[in-house]
Amino acid sequence: MKSIYLYLFFQLICFNVFAQNKPNIILFLVDDMGWMDTSQPFGNSTMPLNKQFHTPNMERMAKQGVLFSNAYVNAVCTPTRTSLITGSSSARTHVTNWTSIHANEQTDFPDSVLKTPDWNVNGLSTGANQQSFLIKKPLPQILKEAGYFTIHVGKAHWGSLGTSGSDPTELGFIVNIAGSSLGHPQSYLGTDNYGNLPGKTTFNAVPDLQQFYGKDIFLTEALTQKAKKAMDYPIQHQKPFFLSLCHYAVHLPIQKDNRFVDRYIKAGLDPTEAAYASLIEGMDKSLGDIMDFLEKKGIAKNTIIIFMSDNGGLANTGRGGKPNTQNYPLRGGKGSAYEGGIRVPLMVKWPGVTKPNQRTNQYVMVEDFFPSVLEMAAIKEVDKSTIRDGKSYVPLLKNVSYADTTRALIFHYPHRWTKNENEAIAWTSAIRLGSWKLIYLMKKKQLELYNLASDLSETQNLAQTHPNIVAQLAKKLGEELRSRSAQMPIWKATGKQVAWPDEL
Amino acid sequence: MKSIYLYLFFQLICFNVFAQNKPNIILFLVDDMGWMDTSQPFGNSTMPLNKQFHTPNMERMAKQGVLFSNAYVNAVCTPTRTSLITGSSSARTHVTNWTSIHANEQTDFPDSVLKTPDWNVNGLSTGANQQSFLIKKPLPQILKEAGYFTIHVGKAHWGSLGTSGSDPTELGFIVNIAGSSLGHPQSYLGTDNYGNLPGKTTFNAVPDLQQFYGKDIFLTEALTQKAKKAMDYPIQHQKPFFLSLCHYAVHLPIQKDNRFVDRYIKAGLDPTEAAYASLIEGMDKSLGDIMDFLEKKGIAKNTIIIFMSDNGGLANTGRGGKPNTQNYPLRGGKGSAYEGGIRVPLMVKWPGVTKPNQRTNQYVMVEDFFPSVLEMAAIKEVDKSTIRDGKSYVPLLKNVSYADTTRALIFHYPHRWTKNENEAIAWTSAIRLGSWKLIYLMKKKQLELYNLASDLSETQNLAQTHPNIVAQLAKKLGEELRSRSAQMPIWKATGKQVAWPDEL
Repeated sequence: MKSIYLYLFFQLICFNVFAQNKPNIILFLVDDMGWMDTSQPFGNSTMPLNKQFHTPNMERMAKQGVLFSNAYVNAVCTPTRTSLITGSSSARTHVTNWTSIHANEQTDFPDSVLKTPDWNVNGLSTGANQQSFLIKKPLPQILKEAGYFTIHVGKAHWGSLGTSGSDPTELGFIVNIAGSSLGHPQSYLGTDNYGNLPGKTTFNAVPDLQQFYGKDIFLTEALTQKAKKAMDYPIQHQKPFFLSLCHYAVHLPIQKDNRFVDRYIKAGLDPTEAAYASLIEGMDKSLGDIMDFLEKKGIAKNTIIIFMSDNGGLANTGRGGKPNTQNYPLRGGKGSAYEGGIRVPLMVKWPGVTKPNQRTNQYVMVEDFFPSVLEMAAIKEVDKSTIRDGKSYVPLLKNVSYADTTRALIFHYPHRWTKNENEAIAWTSAIRLGSWKLIYLMKKKQLELYNLASDLSETQNLAQTHPNIVAQLAKKLGEELRSRSAQMPIWKATGKQVAWPDEL
Repeated sequence: MKSIYLYLFFQLICFNVFAQNKPNIILFLVDDMGWMDTSQPFGNSTMPLNKQFHTPNMERMAKQGVLFSNAYVNAVCTPTRTSLITGSSSARTHVTNWTSIHANEQTDFPDSVLKTPDWNVNGLSTGANQQSFLIKKPLPQILKEAGYFTIHVGKAHWGSLGTSGSDPTELGFIVNIAGSSLGHPQSYLGTDNYGNLPGKTTFNAVPDLQQFYGKDIFLTEALTQKAKKAMDYPIQHQKPFFLSLCHYAVHLPIQKDNRFVDRYIKAGLDPTEAAYASLIEGMDKSLGDIMDFLEKKGIAKNTIIIFMSDNGGLANTGRGGKPNTQNYPLRGGKGSAYEGGIRVPLMVKWPGVTKPNQRTNQYVMVEDFFPSVLEMAAIKEVDKSTIRDGKSYVPLLKNVSYADTTRALIFHYPHRWTKNENEAIAWTSAIRLGSWKLIYLMKKKQLELYNLASDLSETQNLAQTHPNIVAQLAKKLGEELRSRSAQMPIWKATGKQVAWPDEL
């Protein structure tokens, strides 16, 4: 009898006390938010665009944790989201472009010269779907099995309709609210039912927010309210939770958030940019509401918040102002291999671990999220069926001055995103090593070299003057791409594969 | 230090061992299923319609638990669903008719003589929505607070779009899959995306099942798969769960389930009735799949299943065959105050409590579900802000021969459902007391009296020959309606309220 009690006691201990001591983890992911879309500088100084935005809660969070000035993601959405929960680089997952809502549908802009490789157009899945990256245990599933209560709220975009990737509950989330295959909302407006308007409803209508239909409640606000509601259960039951709060904001359509837009109109912004800034401020309010909620519930001290964006800010089309200025001093924007497309805001607040108001300049990559979260949750990964490329940034949180200039970050985009092909927005690979960055422009068969330490804006191509560094980086990039079985486009004229960067 | 351990231990005990000992509870609710729509007889003998259907899993369940031959619900959908989770009769909630998808929309068929009272057209809500029955703690919320993991899958239909009643997660469900304001699916077919077809999408498109889009997976099957998936978490964490698996089947549109329809075509049924029978068999397979799942997971012995329908079988229009024969020997169908509209299948299996293969003839009412579930979960209800009308049927489960002929069941439908007004399908109240049943036909200013013991089919109106019983039942019905603040229609010609049944 005594042994039964002991057994019970240990069972309870294992299921509870240990679980309760695990930190809650919140991924606060913004869509299409650029590195400069905030009043919180991620560069070394406050720059003009920082003055255009009003994000007091990002400033508040920066004061409480670690800000990453050199955080990288993929240049478009689904590859970043896939890497986040697989820990694998997009070159390896072959989820290298954004996925269509429709299964088996190519999303590349047609090109007469290059043929897109046979990538995983359906995103990721946990089942045997064709043209998907098959992953048995995405991060939410691992967390769930380790006792985490896993919640997804907002944009998912992990896979196409008709595949398991279209439903976050198939990826390990216990609760899913408003996440599916859509990459952007049909409407941000509750008065539009977020797009659910019979006769006008498209696949981009946002699911699950029926209670707000017809009400003047902006999508960002609705998602925030549902996220708070969804946290009730794990809080009440003292279960650690993982909340993936992925805002549809600030993706197109750029619709003004009436709560905030006046400030920007008065400041003289054009209507599009004023609306964009209001989308940003609405997102920032959500961040503040979540932080307030955690404090009110008494769990802020045991809750990690990871704030980030999924790709660079839109700068190519659809924005106000002159193209490719929206992320200045970064060059280019979403889709581009230049910094504007791949460098994003990242902040991590881990009470008791991160010191207040810290900044690190060490570069990190989106796939680092996976091992970092596992380390935060003290989970030893056992599934060896998937090769991970990420590296935990937890050591950096503890020592922000840690520097590793030997690590290579790899970017791979064997696609054409839009009609416009300029500003490295199509058919690129890239590598960052130390302060050097090499970009491979496949269609032009060119390599560009930049020194980010002295040329953040990538205006000085040093390829001609530093051939040895070009060769060294091209070799490394080629090796890394091949080791990940990266896919290259095909020259339509010859049927041959585009050369690896070290074969030029 | 020792006291901390003791405290911890008791905390753990309270949160776990006790919680684990609570039984899981599954509400398996079918939509619009009639009392005769099954090969499992609910009457005292096998009747012709029983031979038309094939429901082996209902037969299997009947062999394992208690079958109720006299289980009553409201004549249409939302009132029953509201009573289920409030424990209050529809006469009291003023949710007396089905609710529109659209807020503030009357659903009554227009009538030139009677005006519908100002009922709660938006259903129930937990917030201060106008024209809703306000309930602070619906049953799922109470269960959730008591440690239950609460899951809703399928049709909800508790309230209109734009109100909290449209979202089961606002009613206490932690997980909601496919439930909202819609009362029937736009399509049962995965190949139709369950109605989510841009350009054709209506508010009746079923939400949340994106992974099945384009696939030949019938809605009933899709919901079953998601329900099993949703049970994973509480099973893994040894949390008691409440699963509300509410099928859209067998409501219109009557679409054939190709897995099962051939049997019925071969048996000579017309296409509509063959399709209807295939909807029934698909539902029955779901019941079997759930029972198999519980057995496979080793939790069948600690899981209560409550099988029921929300109103009588459709017999008025939209079905094959001659109108009002579809529930024979019961008279009428959905919407009607005759037995065909309000008597439904009910079975309860509670391992360790119910004995195998039992049957009770004691009449019970839909609002009994609420106190029964609380008793099953050993929860003492403390919220006194809502008046409950139900009575737990748990004593009946333990002693099926228990008989109470003094209890009155009250039905109230101050509405006109369809164009057709015959067969007591509009403007009715009714009372059952012992074997007697009195129906008040408001528009006709008539009272009909039936003895169900000798006249199940309600063919012999005994009002003329038993005036004393009529008076006694009319008095009781009037008293009960007034005590519940029931609403009566208004005579358009005079502006006066329809008389109470004891004022005729």
